Amino acid sequence: MSNPFFSNHGPFKITDILQTLKLKSEEMYVNQIVNDIKDLMTSNTNDITFFHSKKYKDLANNTKASFCITTENLKEILPDTCRPIIVKNVLLATSTVTAKFYPNSINDNFDNTTNFIDKTTFKDKVRFGKNVLVGDNVSIGSNCIIGHNTIIERNVSIGDNCTIGSNSIIRNTFIGNNVKILDNCVIGKHGFGFFPDKKTNVRYPHIGMVIIEDYCEIGCGSTIDRGSMSNTIIGKNTFLDNQIHIAHNVKIGENCIIAGQVGFAGSSTLGNNVMIGGQAGVSGHLKIGNNVHIGGGSGVIKDIPDNTKVMGYPAKDLKNFIRENK
Amino acid sequence: MSNPFFSNHGPFKITDILQTLKLKSEEMYVNQIVNDIKDLMTSNTNDITFFHSKKYKDLANNTKASFCITTENLKEILPDTCRPIIVKNVLLATSTVTAKFYPNSINDNFDNTTNFIDKTTFKDKVRFGKNVLVGDNVSIGSNCIIGHNTIIERNVSIGDNCTIGSNSIIRNTFIGNNVKILDNCVIGKHGFGFFPDKKTNVRYPHIGMVIIEDYCEIGCGSTIDRGSMSNTIIGKNTFLDNQIHIAHNVKIGENCIIAGQVGFAGSSTLGNNVMIGGQAGVSGHLKIGNNVHIGGGSGVIKDIPDNTKVMGYPAKDLKNFIRENK
Amino acid sequence: MSNPFFSNHGPFKITDILQTLKLKSEEMYVNQIVNDIKDLMTSNTNDITFFHSKKYKDLANNTKASFCITTENLKEILPDTCRPIIVKNVLLATSTVTAKFYPNSINDNFDNTTNFIDKTTFKDKVRFGKNVLVGDNVSIGSNCIIGHNTIIERNVSIGDNCTIGSNSIIRNTFIGNNVKILDNCVIGKHGFGFFPDKKTNVRYPHIGMVIIEDYCEIGCGSTIDRGSMSNTIIGKNTFLDNQIHIAHNVKIGENCIIAGQVGFAGSSTLGNNVMIGGQAGVSGHLKIGNNVHIGGGSGVIKDIPDNTKVMGYPAKDLKNFIRENK
Repeated sequence: MSNPFFSNHGPFKITDILQTLKLKSEEMYVNQIVNDIKDLMTSNTNDITFFHSKKYKDLANNTKASFCITTENLKEILPDTCRPIIVKNVLLATSTVTAKFYPNSINDNFDNTTNFIDKTTFKDKVRFGKNVLVGDNVSIGSNCIIGHNTIIERNVSIGDNCTIGSNSIIRNTFIGNNVKILDNCVIGKHGFGFFPDKKTNVRYPHIGMVIIEDYCEIGCGSTIDRGSMSNTIIGKNTFLDNQIHIAHNVKIGENCIIAGQVGFAGSSTLGNNVMIGGQAGVSGHLKIGNNVHIGGGSGVIKDIPDNTKVMGYPAKDLKNFIRENK
Repeated sequence: MSNPFFSNHGPFKITDILQTLKLKSEEMYVNQIVNDIKDLMTSNTNDITFFHSKKYKDLANNTKASFCITTENLKEILPDTCRPIIVKNVLLATSTVTAKFYPNSINDNFDNTTNFIDKTTFKDKVRFGKNVLVGDNVSIGSNCIIGHNTIIERNVSIGDNCTIGSNSIIRNTFIGNNVKILDNCVIGKHGFGFFPDKKTNVRYPHIGMVIIEDYCEIGCGSTIDRGSMSNTIIGKNTFLDNQIHIAHNVKIGENCIIAGQVGFAGSSTLGNNVMIGGQAGVSGHLKIGNNVHIGGGSGVIKDIPDNTKVMGYPAKDLKNFIRENK
Repeated sequence: MSNPFFSNHGPFKITDILQTLKLKSEEMYVNQIVNDIKDLMTSNTNDITFFHSKKYKDLANNTKASFCITTENLKEILPDTCRPIIVKNVLLATSTVTAKFYPNSINDNFDNTTNFIDKTTFKDKVRFGKNVLVGDNVSIGSNCIIGHNTIIERNVSIGDNCTIGSNSIIRNTFIGNNVKILDNCVIGKHGFGFFPDKKTNVRYPHIGMVIIEDYCEIGCGSTIDRGSMSNTIIGKNTFLDNQIHIAHNVKIGENCIIAGQVGFAGSSTLGNNVMIGGQAGVSGHLKIGNNVHIGGGSGVIKDIPDNTKVMGYPAKDLKNFIRENK
């Protein structure tokens, strides 16, 4: 799915990119063109990617990217078709290159292209409340309903038969068909990602988006942050209760049921048919399998295989939790 | 208290109801009329009710309903005056019958009867901010204050001397006198109740309301869902801090003090004078007694008797928690 | 920093104050004037202060206040320059005296001085969205951006280069330069402080404000309550993620990083460079040192010294937590 939210200012010559990183160019690549910066999985020939943790070694080993920002220690894992660009701090260098391609992706200022919906062509197509705002180039399918004071920022795409509540803010988001988003949600703002610095933390670009697939429901007061390099995804027919927080790059499978006040740190993935009780938390960069049940209040700090029931803080096998707490 | 939010399309003949459930009618009831569907406790003669868990056997044994949707295993508990209607899935059948009586209770679309308050008769009676919206048939007592951008949907009733903050949304709710509801709250939306289905989850009707009794205060960013079959109730002089989530059918007693970010799963009841520390969670269908203290961060997963102090996850006697964590 | 939000109706004679507390006056102080009521640290000569817990004995021993509301047990700790005023319930008496000085500090009604920003002198100075409201005597620096539907209440001060999101409400707050406040926040309402009473809880005055220092970022859906007697402070270059709750009087140091859904009870202080994982909670009146790391989901219930890593509920040394949970 192409991303209409952040326009790519590339392509750039690799020599330009190396110069931006204050690295010296090697002769052989002088004229090579780089189209885009993407993650290990979605990169293609003539893209640049990044690789900063062994956790991603399988993806690194199979990347199609022509260049990869990485470290001396990790470079051997890359395939021959991918040239390593060795830096000290992979994420910081990646951030710098991303900002070169996507200079508009750092700030999340309000969308100043919005207009009241009754002054747009949607006025005869959508059922809407008072003070609804819609930005440039928004797409809304048939039979949609949008509540009072809700803001749909530019380029957002909403499918057919969707209901958006009141007082919600949606940006950088693709919404499928038959989706319900309830009141007071904020969807698509940048994630909590930055480089700490004693003078002033440096935000890194978030060029990903949020994708909410068909038949999902998102509860009141929930926040779903868009991805940094990849997308944040809520799979088909997944239901979220109220006051849920989903950080950047999280990918939730289909048919999941997630109760109130649950929180996800960044970049974790959930399989299908996962059920999570209220107030549970899932740490970052974890892989939760299919058909997993996580008890209410649990704190999940490691991967969970398919078909497992866990509970506790830290979360452990449910039977053990029950036995230990008799 | 009668519920003005969802109009009853009944009465129906019991034979119509059985047909909706695809059950065959027995001759003897052919002409019997059913007025309404209610829970075990509030049903009267000529109502239909439902009974799905032994947890409710005392209520079942005393119900006044003339019919009860239940299972082969549970039917013996019903009194002679109540005819069992045997089904495989009690909640699904109950949902189907509820939707027959209350076809408008499934969706929570924004209220399209709202108008700006300065164009209503409230303009001389209420002190209000900018962009306040009020639906049809709303009732507001004397000496009330409503902040900017707040939405009071149709049929909501607000007593005397109440203060509603800004950016809040209130629907399907009865509010007593001297109540304060702060900013960014969402009160009265349907609960997180549905039948999971791989194609698309099926929501069940929520025909209950939220009742907020006199002298309560509800903190910023809180969500209180309305009941499914019974009501969600916040008892007199109970104070809730910010970012609290109260699920459907929860009943909180009087003089309770509940700190920030606490969450309740559905259908639990709290007694009077209960104090709950920040971020604690209470599982569903529990009974918490009077004068109970629940420490901050606790996860309550079983009933708590009167006059008890608990803490921990899972919550246990406070003395044990302290001893074990020295 | 002087507080423009609540006007001091003093000075009062000490005899008036004693009368308000239903205490008899001693002859010697009849004509003595009291300028203000402040906490132990910020009081000056001719101010009145309060002292209710040994926890604050060092501050009490050094206060410059001329009078102090306290108990028989604690009065010996005060310096000779400070006259004790002995009461049964220090906080209740303090509340009564505070309400005498600041009668307008009890209610948090919406600001009825607000006007649409495009009708104010800010219209050529600030970049703003639709329906932005600004109260009397607000100050906004150069190069600021304010999103749709946001409300800036009277006397709020915002520095240069600040970005405020959409649907946020800001009152009783000083904001430095280069601060970002994202969407749906509520900043500066009174804290969750009151005297429980079976008929109707009695709120005590909150005359403090919120101070957000330079380069901070506050995530979506966060709530920051103003102080009761002192201020709630977010130190320079501290970043808060989404759905964070910060109670009254909390003081957070510089360069802290606080992940999603973290909550603070009232009056705790954090040092500099503190990192807190998602959903952690910090109890009230604690002192968290510099360079402390608190793991996600932790429940902190006692002070933490500098340079310590903790995790768990209750939070303990990280190494112990890991060893015990292998």
